[in-house]
Amino acid sequence: MWGGRFATGPGVIMEEINASIDFDKKLWRQDIRGSLAHAAMLAETGILTKEDVATITAGLKKVEGEIESGAFTFSRALEDVHMNIESNLKDKIGLAAGRLHTARSRNDQVATDMRLWVRDTLDEIDGQMADLQLALAEKADTYAGAVMPGFTHLQSAQPVTFGHHLLAYVEMLGRDRSRIRDARARLNECPLGAAALAGTSFPIDRHMTAKALGFDRPTANSLDSVSDRDFVLETLSAASICAMHLSRFAEEIVLWSTPQFGFVRLSDAFSTGSSIMPQKRNPDAAELVRGKAGRVFGALQGLLTMMKGLPLTYSKDMQEDKEGTFDALQTLSLCLAATAGMVRDMQPDLKVMKKAAGLGYATATDLADWLVRVLKMPFRDAHHVTGRLVGIASEKKVGLEKLSLAEMQGVEPAITEAVFAVLGVDQSVKSRVSYGGTAPANVRKQARRWLKQLAKG
Amino acid sequence: MWGGRFATGPGVIMEEINASIDFDKKLWRQDIRGSLAHAAMLAETGILTKEDVATITAGLKKVEGEIESGAFTFSRALEDVHMNIESNLKDKIGLAAGRLHTARSRNDQVATDMRLWVRDTLDEIDGQMADLQLALAEKADTYAGAVMPGFTHLQSAQPVTFGHHLLAYVEMLGRDRSRIRDARARLNECPLGAAALAGTSFPIDRHMTAKALGFDRPTANSLDSVSDRDFVLETLSAASICAMHLSRFAEEIVLWSTPQFGFVRLSDAFSTGSSIMPQKRNPDAAELVRGKAGRVFGALQGLLTMMKGLPLTYSKDMQEDKEGTFDALQTLSLCLAATAGMVRDMQPDLKVMKKAAGLGYATATDLADWLVRVLKMPFRDAHHVTGRLVGIASEKKVGLEKLSLAEMQGVEPAITEAVFAVLGVDQSVKSRVSYGGTAPANVRKQARRWLKQLAKG
Amino acid sequence: MWGGRFATGPGVIMEEINASIDFDKKLWRQDIRGSLAHAAMLAETGILTKEDVATITAGLKKVEGEIESGAFTFSRALEDVHMNIESNLKDKIGLAAGRLHTARSRNDQVATDMRLWVRDTLDEIDGQMADLQLALAEKADTYAGAVMPGFTHLQSAQPVTFGHHLLAYVEMLGRDRSRIRDARARLNECPLGAAALAGTSFPIDRHMTAKALGFDRPTANSLDSVSDRDFVLETLSAASICAMHLSRFAEEIVLWSTPQFGFVRLSDAFSTGSSIMPQKRNPDAAELVRGKAGRVFGALQGLLTMMKGLPLTYSKDMQEDKEGTFDALQTLSLCLAATAGMVRDMQPDLKVMKKAAGLGYATATDLADWLVRVLKMPFRDAHHVTGRLVGIASEKKVGLEKLSLAEMQGVEPAITEAVFAVLGVDQSVKSRVSYGGTAPANVRKQARRWLKQLAKG
Amino acid sequence: MWGGRFATGPGVIMEEINASIDFDKKLWRQDIRGSLAHAAMLAETGILTKEDVATITAGLKKVEGEIESGAFTFSRALEDVHMNIESNLKDKIGLAAGRLHTARSRNDQVATDMRLWVRDTLDEIDGQMADLQLALAEKADTYAGAVMPGFTHLQSAQPVTFGHHLLAYVEMLGRDRSRIRDARARLNECPLGAAALAGTSFPIDRHMTAKALGFDRPTANSLDSVSDRDFVLETLSAASICAMHLSRFAEEIVLWSTPQFGFVRLSDAFSTGSSIMPQKRNPDAAELVRGKAGRVFGALQGLLTMMKGLPLTYSKDMQEDKEGTFDALQTLSLCLAATAGMVRDMQPDLKVMKKAAGLGYATATDLADWLVRVLKMPFRDAHHVTGRLVGIASEKKVGLEKLSLAEMQGVEPAITEAVFAVLGVDQSVKSRVSYGGTAPANVRKQARRWLKQLAKG
Repeated sequence: MWGGRFATGPGVIMEEINASIDFDKKLWRQDIRGSLAHAAMLAETGILTKEDVATITAGLKKVEGEIESGAFTFSRALEDVHMNIESNLKDKIGLAAGRLHTARSRNDQVATDMRLWVRDTLDEIDGQMADLQLALAEKADTYAGAVMPGFTHLQSAQPVTFGHHLLAYVEMLGRDRSRIRDARARLNECPLGAAALAGTSFPIDRHMTAKALGFDRPTANSLDSVSDRDFVLETLSAASICAMHLSRFAEEIVLWSTPQFGFVRLSDAFSTGSSIMPQKRNPDAAELVRGKAGRVFGALQGLLTMMKGLPLTYSKDMQEDKEGTFDALQTLSLCLAATAGMVRDMQPDLKVMKKAAGLGYATATDLADWLVRVLKMPFRDAHHVTGRLVGIASEKKVGLEKLSLAEMQGVEPAITEAVFAVLGVDQSVKSRVSYGGTAPANVRKQARRWLKQLAKG
Repeated sequence: MWGGRFATGPGVIMEEINASIDFDKKLWRQDIRGSLAHAAMLAETGILTKEDVATITAGLKKVEGEIESGAFTFSRALEDVHMNIESNLKDKIGLAAGRLHTARSRNDQVATDMRLWVRDTLDEIDGQMADLQLALAEKADTYAGAVMPGFTHLQSAQPVTFGHHLLAYVEMLGRDRSRIRDARARLNECPLGAAALAGTSFPIDRHMTAKALGFDRPTANSLDSVSDRDFVLETLSAASICAMHLSRFAEEIVLWSTPQFGFVRLSDAFSTGSSIMPQKRNPDAAELVRGKAGRVFGALQGLLTMMKGLPLTYSKDMQEDKEGTFDALQTLSLCLAATAGMVRDMQPDLKVMKKAAGLGYATATDLADWLVRVLKMPFRDAHHVTGRLVGIASEKKVGLEKLSLAEMQGVEPAITEAVFAVLGVDQSVKSRVSYGGTAPANVRKQARRWLKQLAKG
Repeated sequence: MWGGRFATGPGVIMEEINASIDFDKKLWRQDIRGSLAHAAMLAETGILTKEDVATITAGLKKVEGEIESGAFTFSRALEDVHMNIESNLKDKIGLAAGRLHTARSRNDQVATDMRLWVRDTLDEIDGQMADLQLALAEKADTYAGAVMPGFTHLQSAQPVTFGHHLLAYVEMLGRDRSRIRDARARLNECPLGAAALAGTSFPIDRHMTAKALGFDRPTANSLDSVSDRDFVLETLSAASICAMHLSRFAEEIVLWSTPQFGFVRLSDAFSTGSSIMPQKRNPDAAELVRGKAGRVFGALQGLLTMMKGLPLTYSKDMQEDKEGTFDALQTLSLCLAATAGMVRDMQPDLKVMKKAAGLGYATATDLADWLVRVLKMPFRDAHHVTGRLVGIASEKKVGLEKLSLAEMQGVEPAITEAVFAVLGVDQSVKSRVSYGGTAPANVRKQARRWLKQLAKG
Repeated sequence: MWGGRFATGPGVIMEEINASIDFDKKLWRQDIRGSLAHAAMLAETGILTKEDVATITAGLKKVEGEIESGAFTFSRALEDVHMNIESNLKDKIGLAAGRLHTARSRNDQVATDMRLWVRDTLDEIDGQMADLQLALAEKADTYAGAVMPGFTHLQSAQPVTFGHHLLAYVEMLGRDRSRIRDARARLNECPLGAAALAGTSFPIDRHMTAKALGFDRPTANSLDSVSDRDFVLETLSAASICAMHLSRFAEEIVLWSTPQFGFVRLSDAFSTGSSIMPQKRNPDAAELVRGKAGRVFGALQGLLTMMKGLPLTYSKDMQEDKEGTFDALQTLSLCLAATAGMVRDMQPDLKVMKKAAGLGYATATDLADWLVRVLKMPFRDAHHVTGRLVGIASEKKVGLEKLSLAEMQGVEPAITEAVFAVLGVDQSVKSRVSYGGTAPANVRKQARRWLKQLAKG
């Protein structure tokens, strides 16, 4: 794996295990943003001269431009993103570069960079979640009245509508976004100025840098500031729950795409075919969304494990907070994009769905409810009567609606012609008008409510 | 393990794997509370008669009294807590019991019970977290100025105060409580009335039951209502992060209790001795708090894994949401209690701590900062000068403060007598007056702020 | 949760967190077995007198009888199973009980007990795995030639036989058993005699106790002996992989039981019905087997996390090795029993399966292979021709076998009448005679090989 | 994160989520090795002509050379390593390339490649483990008699030797290697020839390809062959347990390097200093080894989760088996290298260790054992007497060996002058001659046994 490279000595091994530049260079924007704010504050408080800070600021912007353009070469010998940038700055502006690090340390610097990066990424992901909600709510509005089977235990239980089913995921994503908002609000305190761990004797103004970087306030305890990674863990928790939601939906897409179910047809873009079986549409994207939940959970678990039992304050173990987090959030982002794409492209087969909705005596509960509502039977007794009627229909291999009134009255004499009105799947879904229920009017209202809210952004 | 019991046939195996009463009986209070609210609503909306509901209510209260008193016998044949209670109610009040289940299903019933239980438990745990914060903040106030080493990489870095160190954990617990508050707010929607999965055709009033049970509103989508376990996962995430905090503190207690560190002495109550080595005080409670983090993480992981890939709506897999959650939250509660007890009882050895704070040239940064502040040297140059002075002191095996002014000026002629004022550990901590820094005045202020806030509750 | 009990003081909290008797009493048989072996060795080596050891032995057997009969009361004040038994022994035989603990410590004692318990449990579980293999292999023999669709991406790919599918799980269980055998062999070293951690100055004979307890040899390093829990972790890893296998099979049972697939019908014993929908057969047992994999994985993860970063040797954290392990192995055992029960009881619907096997142009590969084999076309070209033919059939909404020879020759003139012989599903499975392939004769041979091997035990 | 790239449409998203070439190109050697074996078999069995196979073989070798030299360009449009190589082969040799895929499929191809890669990597890692054992055993031989404290609960318990402590890790690594050997043996079956999932109708010789690729035999069930990833999971389990061992040792190195312990001094190569505190030697490498255990556990957990609940046979989710595995094994390899480097370079401070060994009445057990052995007191009584003596010494703040005989006899009159011989730490370790005990002669013998065994390879 290492091609015998380790035989060349401890130095190579140490560089390999210690250098973080290969992954923490992803933080370059945040690092420069933080340095600019720190420098401005050093000028404002008189810790550095305005001239020095002007030089530093101009230098940092040049570095920024170079990285942006791809002209910058990151060096492993300089270990991490902070030293790479500082060293390049020194090449550009000389001595003044050495003043930038006054009253800060890599410990508060990296904590600030990482918070900024996580915050930026949460904002991006929130946007993607909103986009997926939009895709789902639009489809839900279109299919508010399209009947399909509602499943428990993956057995048909009661008819519902396709729109209603899709809106369940809009609700989940609503909670996901709310978790992300909470995580964002909680992380939005600025550790810059905690220095190595104890604060500093320079007359810095932490409120000023906090504000400049868009934080609500500076963190209140310097030890906690450099050793806290809660914001990463909370982000990964929220990401894991969302990945679980997407995995559930992906499982449904895989099921619905089978010839056995046949509820939806994926677009070419999100399936892979086979040169030999052109009819075959493997739901690869859905399978990958389902499978990728595992790695997001793994990143959360890995980080919890890493932090567990570490004494205060900073330990080098904490450098492990990055790769798993970068990968997990990039994975989630990709899964959100793929799911939104699949939702927009998928074609439901309404006829197949509706037919499936009527199978398995799915309106038996409607019959029982009718007995309770109209005949005033206790619920448990109504269950019993319904059971007997389903038994008769099942023996005759017909649906409940195909029993004659006489057959019904044979079991319960009080039953009237009116019962037949509740035995169709359309009637069934229409009747579920309780708040949150599957009645198409309800579903349409909910879909519109979401569309309106999403339009507001 | 099963003593050949399975040889007796499928029935025994199925009962063993399927029955949940052994653990879900923990939900009995919540189940009765939910049924009382449901019954009241059925009367109010005219779905049941007031007489029936009066009978049901009286019956439920009798059942409640019996369980409370220990007179109730839970039966495995009745599978779960819902059927145990309903069946007992039927024995007590007869036919009317069969009407209670009108317009609901076990699916929305168990979802409601579990939300209520988690909500109750979050409230209890929040109280325990506040109590631990109180214990820490009180100690922090007492020891706001007690100098100890501040560690990075478990190496002395700079002097801090014991109070400051303890307040870092108050901050962590503050975030833990804030996460719990958010989780509580997010879960506080009532699934009751979603029925099996599709809502119901009975004219129920979900807002009424929601309000009666202290929920902010009913859930908006019936499919989501019966298949959502986000509230459990989010609770376990928050519990995992808190368990990680407690594990970090426990690690410190274990370290501090070694003869090598000798920073604190645990009370007898929280150590175990040995009849042969009476001086031995094993920090068993701390070790268990540290070790138990693993099972909390495991419960989170187990539940994420279980939910992953389940199609909507309810699947029996979801019965697995209970045991791990009950165990994890009980574990967290116990760890919080044990940690608060240890904090209250522990005796710091201030002399040992202060001596340790001075080791390892911990005030070298103070010297460098002095060079920057007073002599206006660039920070990186000041580092270099300090490095040379530490080198000299190290060779002479003395502290920096034992170098003569002449020796110092040999390295940097501009150094003056004034430098000695920053080389002591007391002076060092006093100088860190930046917001969040370790200066005793800062620490005392923060401790008092917390004490005041905690007093408000 | 604790009913305010903790307010009564540190003692209660400490007992709650520290006492292990509630769960480690499960080790009582192993603890007594270990003590008997230790005592016999102390006599043989002359460390204790034969009289003392005779008294101890008789006393231990009395204790054993009492626990067996249920007459023994375990006490929390005595903390763990070791002290409960030793204290009771002292009540029975007086002073001599105090000599039993010569040259051992609780550290090596509990390590020995736990190894013995895990070993016993592995043996039990191996037996259950063999039983499940038997159930599967018997069904595989019966259905060696029953055609069903073979799936990739949950899409029909090629026809296979039901027997072949079941044998895939026999292979998985074969690996599971092989892992368990390896774990058992690796754990089979005796830590007894490592004493607290350093060994002992008494002239004990560790080979003698190892042999008496059925171990292959004593462990070679006393520090490792008391701090090693690899054997638990390896057992949980093997259990996790097996739980994953069972979860896959459970997922298939859930799918196959849907009306959409309809491949199998579960027995009443392993389904739950509904009083209202008698036709409904919820596959609860399968869902629980699928869901319970999560808690087994969680136990593994929890224990890895707990051990991670613990310095040598014994730390109290390690007491956490028990509850998760007991629960995970009991869970696995239950899942194995439930799966074996389901397999024995399930009724495949061969007609439905066979019909499904022909859907989706599942013999397209057979056609392509014929083109390669008979017409000597390169495989990739044969794919192309087949693709065009499937396209034509698909447009006409017929199977490949319904195309006329003329239509075929329109695409590839060299095709002859002989091609039709490979387009039926029976012919397809019969042709897959490569080693491990799905040809019924192959499958029957493999099933019989397994049955023979399982008969040998 | 994606720079708005997804806005460009589904195609980009699908490529991003679906293409595996970015990571599976790591399998190129294995892929070519597998193709060469497959081609040779196709010739031998007459399925292809010898000419075609000669062309294919020559072409594959050219491709191999190009990749080796870096001249090969992998293309994302070609999705994976298999298609990249096949397509390039076609460019080189034309039509014959299309014949290579006869009687195989990407499903058995990738399963074969991955087994080969894991097997190669296990062999590499086994070598690294042996190297670490060697480093430890050599140090153990050197320090077989160097006294240090033996810890339980991180409290001094009894003196042991540094060599003995290091050998505990040699034992752990011995089990790690044994687990790897078992995993290797179990994976060593060849899935090639299972084709898509059902086997093939071509007269292939799977035993021939299995043998050519160094496998012990072909796999026995074609469905299992393409859907089995046990070998990856078992490898990650073994890797996790080893990572846990390394994390424990790393924790010890971190502790031992503190000024408080001061047991070892790390080399410059494996520490990072600070320009300002030249005396500071942060044990970064050890911290990273400790922290990296988390990601290895996470990879295991992620993969278990991904596989859980997948129906047979191949699903695209399984593409997720690669990245986590590659990263985890590379991480383990790096941690092994870093640990071996640290062991070789570290300098123990024998004086500090020995002094620490005597603290905390660490020979109290020796005193108790003397009372049992010489005065024939029951062990529990001996404990009691020792406890009183330690109490007296503790009050006088002296070691046990500083008590006068009179003081001792005040507690137990039968004590004689001879007792003082067991109270020194050297005497204590020398006395622990039981098998596996810490007596220096024992330790030296064990170290030499290992060195001899390791020399054999």
